[in-house]
Amino acid sequence: MPGEIGVGMLGYAFMGKAHANGYRTLAYMTWPPPLVPRLVSIAGRNEDAVAEAANRYGFERAVTDWREIVSDPEVGLFDNSGPNNLHAEPTMAAAEAGKHVFCEKPLGRSADESYEMWQRIERSGVKHMTAFNYRFVPAVRLARQMLEAGELGEVLHFRGRYLQEWGTTDADVWRFNRDEAGSGALGDLGSHVVDLARYLVGEIASVSASTQTFAPGREVDDAFEAVVEFDGSALGTIEATRFAAGRKNALSWEINGTKGSLAFDLERLNELQHSDGTRGFRTILVSESDHPFWEWWWPHGHIIGWEHTFVHEIHHLLKAIAGDATVPPHGATFEDGYRAAEVCDAVLRSAGSGAREAVSYRS
Amino acid sequence: MPGEIGVGMLGYAFMGKAHANGYRTLAYMTWPPPLVPRLVSIAGRNEDAVAEAANRYGFERAVTDWREIVSDPEVGLFDNSGPNNLHAEPTMAAAEAGKHVFCEKPLGRSADESYEMWQRIERSGVKHMTAFNYRFVPAVRLARQMLEAGELGEVLHFRGRYLQEWGTTDADVWRFNRDEAGSGALGDLGSHVVDLARYLVGEIASVSASTQTFAPGREVDDAFEAVVEFDGSALGTIEATRFAAGRKNALSWEINGTKGSLAFDLERLNELQHSDGTRGFRTILVSESDHPFWEWWWPHGHIIGWEHTFVHEIHHLLKAIAGDATVPPHGATFEDGYRAAEVCDAVLRSAGSGAREAVSYRS
Amino acid sequence: MPGEIGVGMLGYAFMGKAHANGYRTLAYMTWPPPLVPRLVSIAGRNEDAVAEAANRYGFERAVTDWREIVSDPEVGLFDNSGPNNLHAEPTMAAAEAGKHVFCEKPLGRSADESYEMWQRIERSGVKHMTAFNYRFVPAVRLARQMLEAGELGEVLHFRGRYLQEWGTTDADVWRFNRDEAGSGALGDLGSHVVDLARYLVGEIASVSASTQTFAPGREVDDAFEAVVEFDGSALGTIEATRFAAGRKNALSWEINGTKGSLAFDLERLNELQHSDGTRGFRTILVSESDHPFWEWWWPHGHIIGWEHTFVHEIHHLLKAIAGDATVPPHGATFEDGYRAAEVCDAVLRSAGSGAREAVSYRS
Amino acid sequence: MPGEIGVGMLGYAFMGKAHANGYRTLAYMTWPPPLVPRLVSIAGRNEDAVAEAANRYGFERAVTDWREIVSDPEVGLFDNSGPNNLHAEPTMAAAEAGKHVFCEKPLGRSADESYEMWQRIERSGVKHMTAFNYRFVPAVRLARQMLEAGELGEVLHFRGRYLQEWGTTDADVWRFNRDEAGSGALGDLGSHVVDLARYLVGEIASVSASTQTFAPGREVDDAFEAVVEFDGSALGTIEATRFAAGRKNALSWEINGTKGSLAFDLERLNELQHSDGTRGFRTILVSESDHPFWEWWWPHGHIIGWEHTFVHEIHHLLKAIAGDATVPPHGATFEDGYRAAEVCDAVLRSAGSGAREAVSYRS
Repeated sequence: MPGEIGVGMLGYAFMGKAHANGYRTLAYMTWPPPLVPRLVSIAGRNEDAVAEAANRYGFERAVTDWREIVSDPEVGLFDNSGPNNLHAEPTMAAAEAGKHVFCEKPLGRSADESYEMWQRIERSGVKHMTAFNYRFVPAVRLARQMLEAGELGEVLHFRGRYLQEWGTTDADVWRFNRDEAGSGALGDLGSHVVDLARYLVGEIASVSASTQTFAPGREVDDAFEAVVEFDGSALGTIEATRFAAGRKNALSWEINGTKGSLAFDLERLNELQHSDGTRGFRTILVSESDHPFWEWWWPHGHIIGWEHTFVHEIHHLLKAIAGDATVPPHGATFEDGYRAAEVCDAVLRSAGSGAREAVSYRS
Repeated sequence: MPGEIGVGMLGYAFMGKAHANGYRTLAYMTWPPPLVPRLVSIAGRNEDAVAEAANRYGFERAVTDWREIVSDPEVGLFDNSGPNNLHAEPTMAAAEAGKHVFCEKPLGRSADESYEMWQRIERSGVKHMTAFNYRFVPAVRLARQMLEAGELGEVLHFRGRYLQEWGTTDADVWRFNRDEAGSGALGDLGSHVVDLARYLVGEIASVSASTQTFAPGREVDDAFEAVVEFDGSALGTIEATRFAAGRKNALSWEINGTKGSLAFDLERLNELQHSDGTRGFRTILVSESDHPFWEWWWPHGHIIGWEHTFVHEIHHLLKAIAGDATVPPHGATFEDGYRAAEVCDAVLRSAGSGAREAVSYRS
Repeated sequence: MPGEIGVGMLGYAFMGKAHANGYRTLAYMTWPPPLVPRLVSIAGRNEDAVAEAANRYGFERAVTDWREIVSDPEVGLFDNSGPNNLHAEPTMAAAEAGKHVFCEKPLGRSADESYEMWQRIERSGVKHMTAFNYRFVPAVRLARQMLEAGELGEVLHFRGRYLQEWGTTDADVWRFNRDEAGSGALGDLGSHVVDLARYLVGEIASVSASTQTFAPGREVDDAFEAVVEFDGSALGTIEATRFAAGRKNALSWEINGTKGSLAFDLERLNELQHSDGTRGFRTILVSESDHPFWEWWWPHGHIIGWEHTFVHEIHHLLKAIAGDATVPPHGATFEDGYRAAEVCDAVLRSAGSGAREAVSYRS
Repeated sequence: MPGEIGVGMLGYAFMGKAHANGYRTLAYMTWPPPLVPRLVSIAGRNEDAVAEAANRYGFERAVTDWREIVSDPEVGLFDNSGPNNLHAEPTMAAAEAGKHVFCEKPLGRSADESYEMWQRIERSGVKHMTAFNYRFVPAVRLARQMLEAGELGEVLHFRGRYLQEWGTTDADVWRFNRDEAGSGALGDLGSHVVDLARYLVGEIASVSASTQTFAPGREVDDAFEAVVEFDGSALGTIEATRFAAGRKNALSWEINGTKGSLAFDLERLNELQHSDGTRGFRTILVSESDHPFWEWWWPHGHIIGWEHTFVHEIHHLLKAIAGDATVPPHGATFEDGYRAAEVCDAVLRSAGSGAREAVSYRS
């Protein structure tokens, strides 16, 4: 029987719910789990709401100050599902208190903040992961496997878009506030595209970008468009907007290589389109027993949902924490979180300067 | 805080896993749940395997004789996820011991067996539900709502297919054995199509069918095709096969009404195609906040998986057990299980006789 | 330089326009054409309208009595694009006057009428073709080539549908009149499905069918649904309706074989879906230089239209007339037209008798 | 009966064939045509080949010097279907000899060359059109109509891609030679995207671009990617490549407006995707009797091919030549050809400078 790990979580909204479901589900779906998550403590500002969340998801304690989690000896893993302005301080504190850390994206609100997080947490010696959960979509992982196996040849193009439509809302959302969010569609959606570009193709060398804020008075970008040059000769575009009517959650990308192409759309996340370069695209319903993550699920054709990406992602982290030396580097570390932030910063720089901006990465 | 209900389950394979996940997930996803499921006991023939299953899914007890569940005073709901030949006796015994019952489809191996189950369980006074879980796909429920609201007008056609490809296997599967399974693709896949035809359109009046067994020596049908006439003037086809190469889990249907059409494919279960009769089909990504079941899940565009049909279905049953008089009749009762069996029997009769066979339903 | 053939055409409505375009286009697209069509004479009842049609399409003469075409020594090919009740007499007369004949589908209004046409025309010694033009869609032809090459293995299933929506019209169309049309959706749409079933899979042995007339007072069927058993063990369905809201011209079929599957939809006629049985369906954009008919058209990806089926079909006929002994039997002969009519008659018999009806073919 | 216009054509390869088919088809399909095209003369360097082309397409004369067309009194319309380096001189000579002119895209090999063409031809007083034929796809025209009617609200985004795969060829194609072609994917494919961006959204104010040449030794760009800012606040990307394996002729674009979105793919050119901003995208099969150009074709659902864009485009030009004052400005004039060239030049400038380049248009 595997050991236990105590989980302390900051935040109980959309992401808190998704992470909580991940912990609870992996305990029996990924059998036997590397470690059994014990939901110890959850923190939030509203006392009633956090108590209700604890009751709902099965946390033993509800607290209104995240420092109680940081000092809680029963917590071994600090899960930061809070808003962007609460990423840095609590996560660094938790790591320096010896907790492993799992933090929502974007890691910090800027490359500087992200770099500090990475550096301090790296020095603390704990395991760290940035919640770029789309690396854990089976179809995305299959794409990575095919790329690693050379099935696509050399990659020439990457085109990634993340299109949503809810930017028209009148609601006062923290994601529209520069201090809380850092940036708008760029950090929220674009960081996912950047991470997938890096995960599937490689490092981004330069960006040429424009941004736009459509809603009057909004502090952050509603959309950005960028041309990217990768290390090597590959060329591409990355884009995100909150103003694409009819696009609910349309993270899509296409990769063209010398031997074939791949295409993906998160609204049909169980499918991967593959062309071997001769006769058009094949729709792979990624659910065969030899497909990534599929040993845990159902007979082929019985598709899984968006939420399962967190089951896979947290399983990955727990395996690493459990000391499994064979864990391949699929999870996005805080270094990955930082590097994505460098690209996002370069997008803003380029939008401002009108120049192609080189991306340089601190080590 | 809602009360508890003790669950006793027979079977821990594919369906047992799916049901267990349903109980565990609904407890926090459908918040607050009508009743909190307590996983009391699980039964299976293999002592080690059932003990492992209990450990994995969180059942308090593992037993090798289902009668122990039937006599267990802490069990309030008997969940039959076993093979078809273990549907009738344990389920009837459980009901007559006062347990509510939830049984996998097909209900019995024939209309006669199904009828006896329905009659005895109806007399026992407990709540009963047949696991036609596809009534609980959000897109299917939305279709039902649109049909009830008259958006399609009068229904003229229903075409339903359930196509899989695994019939080519050499494995010795209980589903190929007549005594254990009753029938082949017909009861396994076709019963779902029949149930959806009844749920969405109405009662089937007659069938004209052919069946075929492609694999040498197999006892049951590998495929059937049938023309169906509904009460009223609607006409359609129902079909199922285990020999459709490339079709993983392709339960698809199309409805044409005087005012519009709907189409669905289980391999893209989060989508519903709708034409209002003028300008082609619209792809509804069924994930808006006002869509069926969606108050429990994620922001729109974050799709859910096949397994969640059981979350919705068991929630429905628990609501009825909890005494909620407002529960609409969406769950398939044992009468629905029986009626589907009458249609399946008529398919076999028609295949044998070469005649259009009227379907008559006992009351 | 190829020789000429004089064409005399009966009818100038939808089908006349499509055939006229075929003759004109093949003369330069299929270069060099087997014979150069010279548009000699066109017949229709309305003197002004037929004169306008002659002017428009370039016929040298317009006549109001088709017998003038039959007796016209400059006409070598009689093209019957008229309504169904004008198929038999003019076509037989033309053949017996030594003209090659090309007749729209359905050949006759019944198997009897079709048989008489076939027999008399066969005895006359001329070339004859029934206008089942969908054999000449490049994707359909590619499917046939793949089937002949054994890429699908043994065929187990064929499911063919032809769905249209215009049956709701109030207009007084000859297609709704039994004497002029013979039957409704069955002969008009269903005959195409039957012909493709025969062309791609093989001879139909029996049918179990129902028909329905939705529009009050209409003389012919608006829809039919049928289960078909093929010679051998394959099983399938054929269906057609004029009451499928949102379906404009949806002739679709799927074939499942022991080694793979194919699927097609006329609304996307340049595409063929192919699964080799492992990883889902590949969309073949049928436009590569080695694809059927593609040597005449454009670089790949530049799709062609519905009308080009007639270019291919008439080219085929002209090649046979020109005496090319290597023409493979792709064109539907009058025997094929007759055989399709036998299946259609069996559908009506079965709908009336409620019995599975064997199809027997006269020789 | 309409009058005649004599046509003289330069070039008989891919584009010559497409244009020739256009002239021949419109004469009876768009009935009555504004002017009846008489194919007078065709010019090409290879004497045998041009004679064969004349014979095939029905030109009265074949010449090896385009100057013979320019001086031919029977030619009223000069159609330049030749390679890019033969666009400027012959077209200007023809216009100055009083012929109306129709020239393939890109107009010139640079903005300068294009500007000179536009200026001199404008001064000559003849009608002029650049062959941006995709303005004449029915789905594109429908999109324009919807945009003009305000159905999309204010446009916020345009994303246009033109992906092909044939760049891997070893063949020595004039399109790879800088002097003959001017540029690579940019002028060949990208100019279409630029023109559609301008036609559907509006003038492009700036571009930030990168280009790449993948094939060693090739003189022109194989791919480019660009961010574009439109006059007003809309933001977008335009891209083209000849190295997208599996993409045959994938010109696709998406427009997001404040009230809805549209999407299009040339490989399915008969379809337009439309979201009104609430419930996902509807597939409009653009073939209804009230759809653009559809009065000339078939009953709905009978799709047309790529080649028909030229039928529509040439019809448009002939209508203008015939003096119809009601012709709306849908055809791309030489000013449009010049403006597209300014954007293409800015792409090259930006790729070289690494700066966002403003696009300024000479008047």
